[in-house]
Amino acid sequence: MLASVFAWHASAQANPLPSWNDGAAKAAITDFVARVTKDGGTAFVPPSERIAVFDNDGTLWCEQPIYFQLAFGLDQVRSMAKAHPEWRQQPFKAFLSNDKAALAAQGQRGLLTLVAAAHSGMTTDAYAQSVSNWLGKARHPRFNRPYNELVYQPMVELLGYLRANGFKTFIVSGGGVEFMRVWTEKTYGIPPEQVVGSSGVTRFESGPDGRPVLMKLAKVEFVDSGPGKPSGINRFIGHRPIFAFGNSDGDQQMLQWTAAGPGARFLGIVHHTDAQREYTYDRQSKVGKLDKALDEAMQRGWTVVDMKQDWRTVFAFEHGSAGAAQ
Amino acid sequence: MLASVFAWHASAQANPLPSWNDGAAKAAITDFVARVTKDGGTAFVPPSERIAVFDNDGTLWCEQPIYFQLAFGLDQVRSMAKAHPEWRQQPFKAFLSNDKAALAAQGQRGLLTLVAAAHSGMTTDAYAQSVSNWLGKARHPRFNRPYNELVYQPMVELLGYLRANGFKTFIVSGGGVEFMRVWTEKTYGIPPEQVVGSSGVTRFESGPDGRPVLMKLAKVEFVDSGPGKPSGINRFIGHRPIFAFGNSDGDQQMLQWTAAGPGARFLGIVHHTDAQREYTYDRQSKVGKLDKALDEAMQRGWTVVDMKQDWRTVFAFEHGSAGAAQ
Repeated sequence: MLASVFAWHASAQANPLPSWNDGAAKAAITDFVARVTKDGGTAFVPPSERIAVFDNDGTLWCEQPIYFQLAFGLDQVRSMAKAHPEWRQQPFKAFLSNDKAALAAQGQRGLLTLVAAAHSGMTTDAYAQSVSNWLGKARHPRFNRPYNELVYQPMVELLGYLRANGFKTFIVSGGGVEFMRVWTEKTYGIPPEQVVGSSGVTRFESGPDGRPVLMKLAKVEFVDSGPGKPSGINRFIGHRPIFAFGNSDGDQQMLQWTAAGPGARFLGIVHHTDAQREYTYDRQSKVGKLDKALDEAMQRGWTVVDMKQDWRTVFAFEHGSAGAAQ
Repeated sequence: MLASVFAWHASAQANPLPSWNDGAAKAAITDFVARVTKDGGTAFVPPSERIAVFDNDGTLWCEQPIYFQLAFGLDQVRSMAKAHPEWRQQPFKAFLSNDKAALAAQGQRGLLTLVAAAHSGMTTDAYAQSVSNWLGKARHPRFNRPYNELVYQPMVELLGYLRANGFKTFIVSGGGVEFMRVWTEKTYGIPPEQVVGSSGVTRFESGPDGRPVLMKLAKVEFVDSGPGKPSGINRFIGHRPIFAFGNSDGDQQMLQWTAAGPGARFLGIVHHTDAQREYTYDRQSKVGKLDKALDEAMQRGWTVVDMKQDWRTVFAFEHGSAGAAQ
């Protein structure tokens, strides 16, 4: 046990980020970590303040062609439809009969109604089970892999590298906090209590057997996106991070908030530039639009990761497997 | 350094809870911890699931004669009054002129208006500074000590004992999360990200120098009390605790929620029975009423700590100091 820990430690020290190509982005990360962890150095930060925050969709895992939580929500509506005769109305009718024109006519609100239905009217335990079941059987339409294999290997290494250097790693995502917590510990090594996200209201009730349950209501409690991210960080974490990574305009305020503290700061953006291994998108994208935040990053010298150039590996399954990208 | 750690460890193992008298309460705690940490035992719980939650007011620190956060809020209104000419109206006028009859006529709502004013209209940084300043100068009316010395020494030891046994300790309090986080790490060893509490809405804004700030608004976001506590645990922590400690009916649902999980559970209640060293109150108290939760504790065999019988020491300052209770 000890021997293997030491071996890992030695190898991690030799090359802590093997899926990153040598270049400006990797150097910016390792230089920052070296500076803030150097005892007695001018930029030293004590471990209790080494808070690192990461957006999830498009930063730690893929978000194309649609947010994976939306894919879950739509699959969930399909699987729940039989038990919900009231779903013969719109927007359910259009969706369940695959009537794309009628669904489009329902607009954004229609989609939200669908997804909210998939995320409420059940206990928190039942919901967690449904997420777990879905991950076990759903497959990404392009990669034909379970969605939680679509995580970026370089970012998984980065999370481990930061923790090995005394950082506490958090997710700060617009995604649903209960959706993420089912799998973040296993996938990223981030435990439930270090996941900040959007949430719906829950109500404490007596269950059918008299034992208390928390029911998920169809009422939004908090939207952890855009300017909500600094509020979410303040509410859940209560320190200002020194390290933040995002990939879209929804992360801009989180990056600004992190940048505005005193002392050394690291601000990073994942730029999706690799159509072959993943996707290419930024300023015009419907999902994960990166426009204003990219301008600010270039103006202020934040670290912009060029996925194609900076990442040797995108997904762990790329190597020695037939199931990779088309 | 290492030598002192080992010395501490040896002494902590010999008697990890020196301020607890031997008796049923202490035995229930140490027996529970022994069972859930025994590798291979039937009640073993892995460290990632060793979540312990504690109410704050009346459980970790004193809450009499009024909640300490209310004392802060009232002092804050006094010190802010000059900068707020609009506070010539009620309920401010009654409070600032010490007109008790007029203040009483404003009722509970008047008091809430006062306290809300003391907790909003400033940045989160300014607020944290005002809490810190107040702790530095305010004194408890009976004990004539800074409020953060009014913490229960047996509970501080219990927190350390649990952490030494692989537990992660959280506060789950009806108090304001930003009020507590200023001092919980130093006082209890509980970092900001492990403090769950009530909160107001914050808004991300550009400050006077262009740097972003979070402004505290006079709008309640979440009340972490009663049935709100299980919701707060679900939202912030995302696991069900296996160990919970409270002292009032406001903790009853947190205890029920903790009790309802599978496997070994510890449920504890601090019963205030020591008028000489602290206060005596329970079923009829305005602050910290303990009535229904006491009935349930007795019925279900939860551990009720009798402060007078079970605690050798209540406050650390009792020994060798003239400043103790009157």
